[in-house]
Amino acid sequence: MEEYISLAHGDGGELSHRLIKEVFMEAFGDGNAALFDAAAITMSTHKIAVTTDSFVIKPIFFPGGSIGKLAIAGTVNDLAVSGSIPAFLTCGFVIEEGFPIKDLKQIVSDMAAEAKKTGVSIVAGDTKVVERGSADGVYINTTGIGIYEPGIDCSLEFEEGDAIIVSGTIGDHGVTVLAAREELGISAPINSDCASLNRMLESVLRQCNGVRIMRDPTRGGLATTLVEIAEDFHLILQIDEGKIPVKKEVHGVCDLLGFDPMYLANEGKTILIVDGREKDKVIDILHEFTEGRDAVVIGSIINKGKGKLFLETSIGSKRLLTRLSGTMFPRIC
Amino acid sequence: MEEYISLAHGDGGELSHRLIKEVFMEAFGDGNAALFDAAAITMSTHKIAVTTDSFVIKPIFFPGGSIGKLAIAGTVNDLAVSGSIPAFLTCGFVIEEGFPIKDLKQIVSDMAAEAKKTGVSIVAGDTKVVERGSADGVYINTTGIGIYEPGIDCSLEFEEGDAIIVSGTIGDHGVTVLAAREELGISAPINSDCASLNRMLESVLRQCNGVRIMRDPTRGGLATTLVEIAEDFHLILQIDEGKIPVKKEVHGVCDLLGFDPMYLANEGKTILIVDGREKDKVIDILHEFTEGRDAVVIGSIINKGKGKLFLETSIGSKRLLTRLSGTMFPRIC
Repeated sequence: MEEYISLAHGDGGELSHRLIKEVFMEAFGDGNAALFDAAAITMSTHKIAVTTDSFVIKPIFFPGGSIGKLAIAGTVNDLAVSGSIPAFLTCGFVIEEGFPIKDLKQIVSDMAAEAKKTGVSIVAGDTKVVERGSADGVYINTTGIGIYEPGIDCSLEFEEGDAIIVSGTIGDHGVTVLAAREELGISAPINSDCASLNRMLESVLRQCNGVRIMRDPTRGGLATTLVEIAEDFHLILQIDEGKIPVKKEVHGVCDLLGFDPMYLANEGKTILIVDGREKDKVIDILHEFTEGRDAVVIGSIINKGKGKLFLETSIGSKRLLTRLSGTMFPRIC
Repeated sequence: MEEYISLAHGDGGELSHRLIKEVFMEAFGDGNAALFDAAAITMSTHKIAVTTDSFVIKPIFFPGGSIGKLAIAGTVNDLAVSGSIPAFLTCGFVIEEGFPIKDLKQIVSDMAAEAKKTGVSIVAGDTKVVERGSADGVYINTTGIGIYEPGIDCSLEFEEGDAIIVSGTIGDHGVTVLAAREELGISAPINSDCASLNRMLESVLRQCNGVRIMRDPTRGGLATTLVEIAEDFHLILQIDEGKIPVKKEVHGVCDLLGFDPMYLANEGKTILIVDGREKDKVIDILHEFTEGRDAVVIGSIINKGKGKLFLETSIGSKRLLTRLSGTMFPRIC
């Protein structure tokens, strides 16, 4: 195998053929003989969830993960929060000429490991190569198919008093990726929270009937995601600043650079809105998982009405939060 | 709406929200309210086909199409040649900062028009923005889901004497895109063949039982695709150079630049291998469609055995063809 990606690896000829065989099939397994064609799959139900996401994160390797791990976990989480059981993924690579094949192998190996952990199968793929200077190393699209099982779902029916839960500390991913960018010259002893949450969320859904909605607060962070829920479902939400879990290292970097953790990206966290009477049960289930060990209730639905999100600050005042406006920093996922 | 894409259009905040609403939903319709989340869809069967493709073509607008039309037709064709009925698509955009929103609107409008023509629904999407210089305008991934109807399929069972059919002239797309690149300074009165073939191929499958396989000869062209079939199914194939339809304009550009039309990309053609006794019927059906009006038999399976593709040349000699080796020219789809 060559050391670097060349344009010929992307033109559908002999080198493309070898790249698929020696890099992708090597990692994703022989079972995927049809990896780079349309794959025929048989579903267990008629109702499925479909989601797509492109990953353009910079840098591609960061403490706690890589673009490969992220590309699997991110799409698995999008399926899981929709209430489906993630089942199948496709992956599309756009690779820059000159990209080291050693790095590509590492990324693909991270994808294979995360896919195995989550129980999803990678069923189809595609690779394109663009000239040097036309992409930033590698971009990955993953598209996921999840299965809806009868009786396991989010109700989307909200009531006053429903509890807002976050499954752990916020801002870890955003701060880690920011710190990993050499040009900023900062370092923080922190890892991305990048993780697949499907096992944990499936466990919650199987044991609780009162789950109204689940969302992963990625781009735009906790605040933007809650504003979207408030607007989409005409709810007035209130969260308590003092209850929102933020690591002190994240606070430190945010204070230094003027960022607000509420708007930083997360890649291993979920927001759940649940029947207030089931909140303790949900918290107990989340605590059984490493990814949910810091789960807490941070607020509640205080009313129905024009979508609004209020923050009760630590000094007792109430502040209206809006969605992220303008870029904090890009290329975070 | 702004005139150009900025990084803030990709960060999940206010501008992302507006881009989705004013560009994507505007074109793809209000029915796709869940466009940028996991979409719940109900299938009519349990058996589905899944395929993914990233489009990085340069230039993004070319005679006969655009990256938008291509992104729909290319994935629709991958589903159709697999014997499935294309049903759902997702689309993932990676857009370069500074890209004109007017061009994005044109691309999205081309996608909506082609999706409508083919009968597929766009059910989920994603947009990422990368810094100026980190991508070449826009890259699009489309992932497709097709439905297998019982009894409508390719058999993949081959016999000596099976006919090899190509649905029209080859090399049109490759030559058009090449000529559209200003730096080459050539012009050719020719259009890309970029087209969705699902209606035509469905018609063939519904009326004929003897279809062994269908493939679209995109990257790598007619020769590479036939070599792959020969190798995958242990067949010895022979095609007749004199019968392969090539437009004289394509021959002209190829002669000028030293390319072989057999290895040029096509985006609106299919290779079909069919029972020799059904070949006339298949040709008649193909001729009913604009996209298939030049369909002809170009060869046959002469034996089973170690996968090989022979070309009977116009002077009567026999030449062994291999898959494309090295780059002819990249960024063709």
